[in-house]
Amino acid sequence: MIDETHAASASSWVEGAAGHREFPVQNLPYGIFTAPGAPPRAGVAIGDHVLGLGAAADLLDGRARSAAQAVGEEQHLNRLLAEPAESRAALRQGLFRLLSDRSFEKRVRPLLFRQANCQLGLPAKIGDYTDFYAGIHHARAVGALLRPDNPLLPNYKYVPIGYHGRASTVRASGADVVRPRGQVRAGDTPPALSETRRLDLELELGLWVGGAPNDDGPVPISAAASRIAGLSLLNDWSARDVQAWEYQPLGPFLAKNFLTTVSPWIVTTEALAPFRVAPTNREPGDPSPLDYLFDRNDQSLGAYDIRIRATLQTERMRQAGIAPVTLGTTSAMYLYWTPAQLVAHHTVNGCTLVAGDLLGTGTISGPDDASRGSLMELSRGGREPIDLPTGEQRTFLEDGDVVELHGWAEADGFARIGFGPCVGKVVAATR
Amino acid sequence: MIDETHAASASSWVEGAAGHREFPVQNLPYGIFTAPGAPPRAGVAIGDHVLGLGAAADLLDGRARSAAQAVGEEQHLNRLLAEPAESRAALRQGLFRLLSDRSFEKRVRPLLFRQANCQLGLPAKIGDYTDFYAGIHHARAVGALLRPDNPLLPNYKYVPIGYHGRASTVRASGADVVRPRGQVRAGDTPPALSETRRLDLELELGLWVGGAPNDDGPVPISAAASRIAGLSLLNDWSARDVQAWEYQPLGPFLAKNFLTTVSPWIVTTEALAPFRVAPTNREPGDPSPLDYLFDRNDQSLGAYDIRIRATLQTERMRQAGIAPVTLGTTSAMYLYWTPAQLVAHHTVNGCTLVAGDLLGTGTISGPDDASRGSLMELSRGGREPIDLPTGEQRTFLEDGDVVELHGWAEADGFARIGFGPCVGKVVAATR
Repeated sequence: MIDETHAASASSWVEGAAGHREFPVQNLPYGIFTAPGAPPRAGVAIGDHVLGLGAAADLLDGRARSAAQAVGEEQHLNRLLAEPAESRAALRQGLFRLLSDRSFEKRVRPLLFRQANCQLGLPAKIGDYTDFYAGIHHARAVGALLRPDNPLLPNYKYVPIGYHGRASTVRASGADVVRPRGQVRAGDTPPALSETRRLDLELELGLWVGGAPNDDGPVPISAAASRIAGLSLLNDWSARDVQAWEYQPLGPFLAKNFLTTVSPWIVTTEALAPFRVAPTNREPGDPSPLDYLFDRNDQSLGAYDIRIRATLQTERMRQAGIAPVTLGTTSAMYLYWTPAQLVAHHTVNGCTLVAGDLLGTGTISGPDDASRGSLMELSRGGREPIDLPTGEQRTFLEDGDVVELHGWAEADGFARIGFGPCVGKVVAATR
Repeated sequence: MIDETHAASASSWVEGAAGHREFPVQNLPYGIFTAPGAPPRAGVAIGDHVLGLGAAADLLDGRARSAAQAVGEEQHLNRLLAEPAESRAALRQGLFRLLSDRSFEKRVRPLLFRQANCQLGLPAKIGDYTDFYAGIHHARAVGALLRPDNPLLPNYKYVPIGYHGRASTVRASGADVVRPRGQVRAGDTPPALSETRRLDLELELGLWVGGAPNDDGPVPISAAASRIAGLSLLNDWSARDVQAWEYQPLGPFLAKNFLTTVSPWIVTTEALAPFRVAPTNREPGDPSPLDYLFDRNDQSLGAYDIRIRATLQTERMRQAGIAPVTLGTTSAMYLYWTPAQLVAHHTVNGCTLVAGDLLGTGTISGPDDASRGSLMELSRGGREPIDLPTGEQRTFLEDGDVVELHGWAEADGFARIGFGPCVGKVVAATR
């Protein structure tokens, strides 16, 4: 629902928040911050500042107040995510009022911290992490490397393909990407334990599950969108050589579970309401979604126009003062399945989704080389290196490389909102 | 280490515990029990009784006392599992003394509950659940159904194949197996949403991770065995028709994550010490394990001789008073990889294992039809029904079927110990 909290004319009294490229008052994403000398706690981003939710609760009323209190003393957002969608919407309304209405300035100002002085942590205690494969251009490009004549498998346009990932190794932006070791096999030689030589990024969105667990059975598609409380950027770091050797027949395992990085702010689905669009990624002749994946509202507004860019800066670029180069700029509109379809599919067998669960979309590549979300695609499976301004080349990531994802949404008549960075630096394998 | 707690001559003063087929004083497995009118709490099984750990702590000393106190008021065993192996061993020693030395009888007896009057819950809050594929006879039999000429993939004898499962749907023995729905495709017809018609069991062991998380990197094979605190039986229910259609290219997902059942008692690795044996399942000409998977102690005593039997009783058998039939009796000796090898492999890329994580071994089939761990194998992929005493036949499970796993270990000179049942009844799909 689009309301006054989305109006382009709205602005916050907090210095620097009006016209902020990421966190104007129209955004209000939640996260876990640690101010100097204080324990980690829940907060909301406004401009370059963060407001503690527990402290703000006293200034709120009704459902907004109880939602803020529920999470006030927690070190994770799970209790807030578990609130019904109506309570989360009420909290947004309440915080919007505190931060836009100047009559609250005197009471709220002392509760603000500069983000630059805070550490940002993992926003939720993740019960289960599922990674989907909903980026059709990625699936097709990677499939073409393996099966040039038949890039997409027969199930792709029927089944939102997904698999379970590892929850304990999901970290907030900034965690070092320690180059993993694993079994790799070159040609017909015996396999050996080796540092990965094909370390890759995967540009994704992370969907944070909210609401009450569906203990009573599947979530119908008509109710599925409301089970996603918000979104973050997600980098599903991958060791391609390990993956190639291990993944048959049960899928990726050690090639993925050493680290997954998420941006620390959860941008709410309420904040993203102006950027909902019709899914456009089906092609003529594609099968209709099966009934349990079909909903009229979802077909008209179930996708998001969120742009995401991946950049790379090597150690040498950093030393030479050369800015990061863009690897690709893409959009969530390239996803074949909507968030609601992913939820409806995930639960159709009775599987319980719990607030704080994380669903990755899969790599969101576009159709051309300007919009790829992985080096696997950009370098054609490692065969065609990409050139960097320093004269360096890359097929896969080298030690010292820094990869950043940036995400934002903008539309005529609305303020631009952003996700904050999702960054990781590759460091040498230990021992 | 084998000590006085394993002596066949040891016995408990608790009525019915001496010579108990599952829980003599030589076993002492941990679980979460709920006595009438009390909250769930940690206990240890002795004969047909259970002793609350929190209450017993006052009668213990030193490390045993602090280990019991750590978990005393918790509703999950995670804190106990997280204790160092030495503390868990001390607790075993202390409990052995309380329950075998008659001088404690007067103080301990009031703390005992009859298991029959208690509910048994999931023993730990599972952070992550990983399922391996270490039963080579299962891998070969299932592979032969798909690829008659090449049943085992080239990576099988090098890589302990595994994948992540769903933690939120692991339940304790007794949970109903609600027949799941999912996308299935018959031949070349378009896929459709349907109740699974190929519901199967998978007979496995579950390994409970213990100790401190390996935040500093891989667990070396020499230290890996000590990261397994104990074992349960595990049934990895599977919908084969859903699996066949969804699993390419990223592995099983909805075909597995609707339910995984574990037996509620964690039988400790200390209790299982007398039943450690050398791994025997490698065949002449098999490659040696890579260095990170090779340890001399593990090669001499890293496997377990644990027998497991799966039984089936249909509704009609139950009504006719016909006892369950055995589907298969197998042994953990048929696993290709030891628990230590699974841990060393899982962490070789830096992946963190946390106390309370659960590792499934994969289906433990033996080499012949008397030792299969799934109906997929017994019925040759559904082509050859098995006959039941009622004249009924089964290829896969029907509504009303009850599947039970029973596990035990016995060896000359030692008391037999058991796992308690791991049971589930198939019920009709809801809605």
